[in-house]
Amino acid sequence: MANFKGHALPGSFFLIVGLWWSVKYPLKYFHQKRKRSQYYQRLEIIEAAIRTLFSIIGILAEQFVPDGPHVHLYSENHWIKLMNWQHSTMYLFFAISGVIDMLTYLNTHVPLGVDRLVMAVATFNEGFLFYHHVHNRPPLDQYIHSLLLCAVFGGTLSIFLEVIFRDNIVLELFRTSLTILQGTWFWQIGFVLFPPFGAPKWDQKDDSNIMFITMCFCWHYLAALCITAVNYSLVCCLLTRLKRHGGEIIGIQMLKSDHKYQEALLGGSDEE
Amino acid sequence: MANFKGHALPGSFFLIVGLWWSVKYPLKYFHQKRKRSQYYQRLEIIEAAIRTLFSIIGILAEQFVPDGPHVHLYSENHWIKLMNWQHSTMYLFFAISGVIDMLTYLNTHVPLGVDRLVMAVATFNEGFLFYHHVHNRPPLDQYIHSLLLCAVFGGTLSIFLEVIFRDNIVLELFRTSLTILQGTWFWQIGFVLFPPFGAPKWDQKDDSNIMFITMCFCWHYLAALCITAVNYSLVCCLLTRLKRHGGEIIGIQMLKSDHKYQEALLGGSDEE
Amino acid sequence: MANFKGHALPGSFFLIVGLWWSVKYPLKYFHQKRKRSQYYQRLEIIEAAIRTLFSIIGILAEQFVPDGPHVHLYSENHWIKLMNWQHSTMYLFFAISGVIDMLTYLNTHVPLGVDRLVMAVATFNEGFLFYHHVHNRPPLDQYIHSLLLCAVFGGTLSIFLEVIFRDNIVLELFRTSLTILQGTWFWQIGFVLFPPFGAPKWDQKDDSNIMFITMCFCWHYLAALCITAVNYSLVCCLLTRLKRHGGEIIGIQMLKSDHKYQEALLGGSDEE
Amino acid sequence: MANFKGHALPGSFFLIVGLWWSVKYPLKYFHQKRKRSQYYQRLEIIEAAIRTLFSIIGILAEQFVPDGPHVHLYSENHWIKLMNWQHSTMYLFFAISGVIDMLTYLNTHVPLGVDRLVMAVATFNEGFLFYHHVHNRPPLDQYIHSLLLCAVFGGTLSIFLEVIFRDNIVLELFRTSLTILQGTWFWQIGFVLFPPFGAPKWDQKDDSNIMFITMCFCWHYLAALCITAVNYSLVCCLLTRLKRHGGEIIGIQMLKSDHKYQEALLGGSDEE
Repeated sequence: MANFKGHALPGSFFLIVGLWWSVKYPLKYFHQKRKRSQYYQRLEIIEAAIRTLFSIIGILAEQFVPDGPHVHLYSENHWIKLMNWQHSTMYLFFAISGVIDMLTYLNTHVPLGVDRLVMAVATFNEGFLFYHHVHNRPPLDQYIHSLLLCAVFGGTLSIFLEVIFRDNIVLELFRTSLTILQGTWFWQIGFVLFPPFGAPKWDQKDDSNIMFITMCFCWHYLAALCITAVNYSLVCCLLTRLKRHGGEIIGIQMLKSDHKYQEALLGGSDEE
Repeated sequence: MANFKGHALPGSFFLIVGLWWSVKYPLKYFHQKRKRSQYYQRLEIIEAAIRTLFSIIGILAEQFVPDGPHVHLYSENHWIKLMNWQHSTMYLFFAISGVIDMLTYLNTHVPLGVDRLVMAVATFNEGFLFYHHVHNRPPLDQYIHSLLLCAVFGGTLSIFLEVIFRDNIVLELFRTSLTILQGTWFWQIGFVLFPPFGAPKWDQKDDSNIMFITMCFCWHYLAALCITAVNYSLVCCLLTRLKRHGGEIIGIQMLKSDHKYQEALLGGSDEE
Repeated sequence: MANFKGHALPGSFFLIVGLWWSVKYPLKYFHQKRKRSQYYQRLEIIEAAIRTLFSIIGILAEQFVPDGPHVHLYSENHWIKLMNWQHSTMYLFFAISGVIDMLTYLNTHVPLGVDRLVMAVATFNEGFLFYHHVHNRPPLDQYIHSLLLCAVFGGTLSIFLEVIFRDNIVLELFRTSLTILQGTWFWQIGFVLFPPFGAPKWDQKDDSNIMFITMCFCWHYLAALCITAVNYSLVCCLLTRLKRHGGEIIGIQMLKSDHKYQEALLGGSDEE
Repeated sequence: MANFKGHALPGSFFLIVGLWWSVKYPLKYFHQKRKRSQYYQRLEIIEAAIRTLFSIIGILAEQFVPDGPHVHLYSENHWIKLMNWQHSTMYLFFAISGVIDMLTYLNTHVPLGVDRLVMAVATFNEGFLFYHHVHNRPPLDQYIHSLLLCAVFGGTLSIFLEVIFRDNIVLELFRTSLTILQGTWFWQIGFVLFPPFGAPKWDQKDDSNIMFITMCFCWHYLAALCITAVNYSLVCCLLTRLKRHGGEIIGIQMLKSDHKYQEALLGGSDEE
């Protein structure tokens, strides 16, 4: 996957998840304040299912692209396409994380917090593999990937904290912004290392390129913060307007349609 | 900005903020004890506005000084004045942090803690850019800047903890002292690397200079601690004396003048 | 112990402890929910005693194997078998940790949390000695041991957090999975560095071997997570089925048989 | 102070503090359980005063030993005795920490936790100066000092946690054991680098010496843990025996003698 598409695909994946979270968590937060956060369980399950699905697609893509390993790991004294295997492993952890997320909401016997722990592990694992991934490459290539690690390990820390400080909106928004950052940065890596549309190659050893890339990373995070902030305020405005114009209807309808579902779901209780 | 002024300016900025905080937080703490901390909201907003303003002035200065980039980033195959662009980026993050601070107090829909998170991010960003800033320079130059990172990353950690342990006076005083340290250290860097008043240049490769600078950094922190302690006790004495001499008047006047303002402000509520 | 057995033995030790924990903690968690967690004290004491015993066996084995130091440390100007002494030291810390665990449950004057602190110290100590253990070895040997440190220091952090967040099922399961990981990874090290059954030696300097080993470590952790999850759900199913078929009997019997014991034990109280 | 005495003196200082803490904290803990912990304030103040005194003696010794700098810092183009100045700086921070400790208990306006923060800063400062202290020395010298940093930074972390989790007996005992470790390790450094009694010098470049020293550090911590545990149980036994034999008398007498003092002291209240 060492080409433009190979970076655009995971980038889009993280970007979509990040954008979705930048809508979901504000929504949940405002409903929580009004004591109506229960019907987010179905949402969470659907989200986790989609994340799992995407991850499995990622695994299959890495394995069965024409120059992929096709599930062969070792033959004739050498390892086959370890790069693809490593990427598959990353996706596999995110798939497991998705499954655990679903289980946490479907089964009351799974302790709350396990979903966050496994998500933190999946994120750490991504960073761990990337860290040992980029030896023996040109400086800019190494550097631009190592910047990704800031986003990844920052995310790991933040998600791990959510094991203990669950449903903290600030930590959730932090995670959201770091996920968007990862998404846009993957795209940036693609543009820098494999310039599409016949753009000229970057000089991989030029110090001022590295200096620009450092700053560019900060700008990406700034953009990620802004996107998170804009979506947060859009959700806030929307809900306020709905409320003002007697628009609680939507909420009520959601509640109603969820009612039967919730009863089945909450046979047990989600006490912590 | 690689001259004396370029270090004195940010130094003064941090110093002023630090000194102000060393007065504000003790004041707030003593009023909190007497259940009268609400009217600090207006103060916080004014402070944040001033911080934002200073940051914007910083950005403009970096961009439009005679040898600045004048908002040109790339031309004729090379990056233009990346140093100035990096400094602008640092100021930009502090501006954003100021804006978010204002919003947190102006708008009850912004969750408490987001202001601290963004401040931590802005501080981390400063450290992050500095870290990748000083390659290929003489040892003393590198070293004296890397000491700054202790103050910066220590501050990042402390501010991040405030996301969870908000309004903890100890963390606030710690942050204050680290901010003062940053301020005085910027001045120290200026004096060492660009000696003003025709003082002789320091030998950049002398080991004993580096050894002295290490110790000097500790002394700066000691001074920062003392300044914080002195201001704390001054505030404490002042308030005690006012109280003793029937001087609650000031507090009451502040409360009154704020009353109408607060009502408008607190249409919602700042529950956490 | 630089042979296959020398890695298989500690590996089995950690594996057994990990597997046992993956049963114990879910059991305790489900009983806790039903307010019946007291009779786990006896279990904890037995477990700690066994851990202590195993550690002492480890010490004795390291000291009195034919080519061991036989409790001689220094003679004729050189240190004797420092490798074995270092391993003995590791076991010794785990023995101390076991003793403290026993004391915590036997004696109400030992503050809760000390057992976790000493366990964290023992784990840190293992990592500390390993870290300074593998200098001057071939790259793959160094690398495969350094991966172990991820599990060890991750465990240290997690156990240290338990000092403050005691009886948090998520942290306990995390610790469990990291212990299983250590166990299986010791076996992996044995297989890679000292291939048994006449298998060919690995090329210690081949980069792709290192790349595979990195990924392999992730797979081991995946396996450890799955084992933990499977055992957790088995315990969950078992308890649910027992409950459904009037099978509270077992629990009640355990309670009864423990009743007298508990009374003696809980002369004091385990308030925190 | 690069001689045996120069390491024996700080070693004794830390050892005495550590041993005292290993008695004080258990005492306080057991009295706390019986709601009688108030009269420890006088003890704390005396302890802090003694710590301050010792630190000042340390500063004076470093400055006015025959080959000391005698408060001259710079003359004729070179720095004077920076080593002694660095040591003075370390002692100065501990003196400040002692003063703040006293103030915390004497003055109710000083927020609780500031004493711990400043103690953490003093400890960090010690490690910070040591870290930049040992460049350009033989490997064993560097290594044996760097091991000290484990104790120092471990202590920093632990003390910083006490800002938030104050009066946690486990953290206090951890700090105690690390302080004892520092004490005994200073002595060990003295014995290794400046063998007294005409013992032969250690080979500073021998790898097996370094290997032994690593393990020796673990043994020191083991000893520190044992000392802490023994003192803890002695205090526990003593108090239990006193209680059994109607010996509450001592406690009561202490209470009485402290009563008047406390009233003066607690004009305010030590609410947190």
